[in-house]
Amino acid sequence: MRRLLLISNSTLHGSGYLDHCKEQIKSFLSCSVQKVLFVPYALHDRDAYTKLARTAFNEMGYDLDGIHEHKSAVEAVNAAQAIFIGGGNTFRLLKTLYDEKIVDLIRERVTNENVPYIGSSAGTNVATHSINTTNDMPIVHPPTFDAIGLVPFNINPHYLDPDPNSKHMGETREARIKQYHEYETSPPVLGLREGCILLVEGDKATLKGKTGARLFVR
Amino acid sequence: MRRLLLISNSTLHGSGYLDHCKEQIKSFLSCSVQKVLFVPYALHDRDAYTKLARTAFNEMGYDLDGIHEHKSAVEAVNAAQAIFIGGGNTFRLLKTLYDEKIVDLIRERVTNENVPYIGSSAGTNVATHSINTTNDMPIVHPPTFDAIGLVPFNINPHYLDPDPNSKHMGETREARIKQYHEYETSPPVLGLREGCILLVEGDKATLKGKTGARLFVR
Repeated sequence: MRRLLLISNSTLHGSGYLDHCKEQIKSFLSCSVQKVLFVPYALHDRDAYTKLARTAFNEMGYDLDGIHEHKSAVEAVNAAQAIFIGGGNTFRLLKTLYDEKIVDLIRERVTNENVPYIGSSAGTNVATHSINTTNDMPIVHPPTFDAIGLVPFNINPHYLDPDPNSKHMGETREARIKQYHEYETSPPVLGLREGCILLVEGDKATLKGKTGARLFVR
Repeated sequence: MRRLLLISNSTLHGSGYLDHCKEQIKSFLSCSVQKVLFVPYALHDRDAYTKLARTAFNEMGYDLDGIHEHKSAVEAVNAAQAIFIGGGNTFRLLKTLYDEKIVDLIRERVTNENVPYIGSSAGTNVATHSINTTNDMPIVHPPTFDAIGLVPFNINPHYLDPDPNSKHMGETREARIKQYHEYETSPPVLGLREGCILLVEGDKATLKGKTGARLFVR
């Protein structure tokens, strides 16, 4: 039974890293997990990012390893009790997951071996059907936009409602998602507002947090 | 001698399609051009988009053809007196330019045969080194992010300065461009604010409009 905690954003305005979701993470991992495997590929400085994540998880009572601290990314995933993929640039993250040949392996471990998965922002994007609805700049070219596919829909993290007073003429988030839905094969897209978290247990998904989400269906 | 008019955005808040740049376009095309070839690939409804562009160009005194109205895109580019690529989704636009096999041909015609090029928003992105600094959602997967390469730098259209009062925690435009510059091979990026236009004549580039631009160098 797959178990996912998909967080819109790691830091909420006015609070520290993961502060708004620490209780959710502790309840999600419970005491069956001692150590979390952290995937910092979405940011350039993997050591600094791992240090930040380690501090937060230590405070919650868990050990944490950076995947890049292991000799082999494949072996690290194979040995993981739980996986946390952090935010940053989604294109860099997905490309590195493919480069390290761990996309299928993570799917296998989460889907068939009940390894709990936590994603935040870009780490939430790559857990879904595809990264077609990321907000990030395409700073590198992944071989495909297909992602790990732990759920059969897409998520738009940091979802922003259209601002009727805006004078900016760039497309709204809503307009961009509707462009995606001009293609017949596009799955539903869940716009997760900042502060919102999706808990997936088997075939059941529950919205957590107070800000809610918006579902776009073709 | 290459001649490019690279527009940040086709519609400025409070005015109609191309209204803020019609004088620039007329001065750029002058009387040497009678008919403009319009590339509407960035939007789903090519006919409606071409109708909009045709109305605007007719008002300026030019005829306009949609490239999709021709039997062959290659022949249409080969016969073009001037090319205008409109905005929309940059990924859809670039993929279609590659599908139609006209990326190299447009470069050749603009660079070596003095065909004037006008781009707006996504049409400005594809004129540059690459689309690595577009703001759009990656709704389709182009074979590469390398673009037509009419200039050796990138542009970020609709550039937005960081808002010190924002409570949104998604990366600012500045932060996203800095992530791109974490790669050694990334060229400079010109953030073109809405209302701003870059006129390129040979090796000389001149900023037009009143809002200015911001240059990011690695």
